[in-house]
Amino acid sequence: MEEREISKAVIKRLPRYYRYLGEILESGVERISSSELSSRMKVTASQIRQDLNNFGGFGQQGYGYNVKYLYEEIGKILGVDKQHNMIIVGGGNLGQALANYVAFEKNGFVIKGIFDVNPVLKGLSVRGIQIHMLEDLREFIQKEAIQIAALTLPKSKAEEMTELLVRYGVKAIWNFAHVDLQVPEDVLVENVHLSESLMQLSYNITRYEKEHLE
Amino acid sequence: MEEREISKAVIKRLPRYYRYLGEILESGVERISSSELSSRMKVTASQIRQDLNNFGGFGQQGYGYNVKYLYEEIGKILGVDKQHNMIIVGGGNLGQALANYVAFEKNGFVIKGIFDVNPVLKGLSVRGIQIHMLEDLREFIQKEAIQIAALTLPKSKAEEMTELLVRYGVKAIWNFAHVDLQVPEDVLVENVHLSESLMQLSYNITRYEKEHLE
Repeated sequence: MEEREISKAVIKRLPRYYRYLGEILESGVERISSSELSSRMKVTASQIRQDLNNFGGFGQQGYGYNVKYLYEEIGKILGVDKQHNMIIVGGGNLGQALANYVAFEKNGFVIKGIFDVNPVLKGLSVRGIQIHMLEDLREFIQKEAIQIAALTLPKSKAEEMTELLVRYGVKAIWNFAHVDLQVPEDVLVENVHLSESLMQLSYNITRYEKEHLE
Repeated sequence: MEEREISKAVIKRLPRYYRYLGEILESGVERISSSELSSRMKVTASQIRQDLNNFGGFGQQGYGYNVKYLYEEIGKILGVDKQHNMIIVGGGNLGQALANYVAFEKNGFVIKGIFDVNPVLKGLSVRGIQIHMLEDLREFIQKEAIQIAALTLPKSKAEEMTELLVRYGVKAIWNFAHVDLQVPEDVLVENVHLSESLMQLSYNITRYEKEHLE
């Protein structure tokens, strides 16, 4: 496949293509035109062609896209064709909610364990995934070849924990704490800042009200 | 204040300014230069000046920004200076995790109730927020002037519930289900698609490995 620099905006859109193509594939459709995909996804057909052209063009003029091929190729680009071992740090409601997402596994994200400091949780399981205590963290990360840690601790503890995780060899942090983590260059961070997402909503509510009351 | 069309990218960055300014304010700092703010936020000073200029320029050359004023003005733009009443639909782990976020209230998002269909949860509370059954949904939305519904149901139930919520007068949906909701033009949706966020991480892991193994 051609290797070019792909814009961040395109990458952000790929998981959505992947989701739609997965659903289309499941429904038994084998080929789809950019205009059909366009009407399902509510994105212009030209945007779809442009986006998918970034990857050397999966479509054939007049034949549409081969759904399975496109799904698998986008899967490879996103890295979901490989297994990524993961732990959840923080066994509270959010950590347990993440442990219950079966969809993650379908995409190669395998949750190997949950870690917490609360001895009450020791040995308990969420959907068969055991809750461990922090003293086992180092060994577990190495033995289970953990790449990703989902961090669901409060802000005050998240920074300290990040240092530990990095020292023990975690390569990527999926951060739910409301803080920008400081990590070495070779460690990746993806933030899910819920408060910020909620503020996008209040911004839009406010703007909408202004426009309609003026 | 000047009213101009502000780009989506700037709006996306505002909550982060708001968070940093809130922390700076709490630490007792009254004025801050764009270069100081720049080094804290790891954004270029020129980006900061450009972003904040969108709002008519809060800074004075040579004096820096008045932290409290800037914090409050950005708060107004984001609409977090007003109260937004909210319900959580889905009383599972994720719904309970959201109910436990005290930070939302600090920004004006007041969670008035949690709704579920599971009779086992009826009458229980999370951080003093009561869990109600669906039959009370319509009346509750109207009586409590609910603007926002956080939707933490599985995909299969999210679409049906959205119809109900819209019919009962909810103006904005904070959607955690892995589906694009269809809503009328005057209803706002903000998505938190966790699987897609995780795929950004696997994309970056994959790219990083490629670059360093080749």
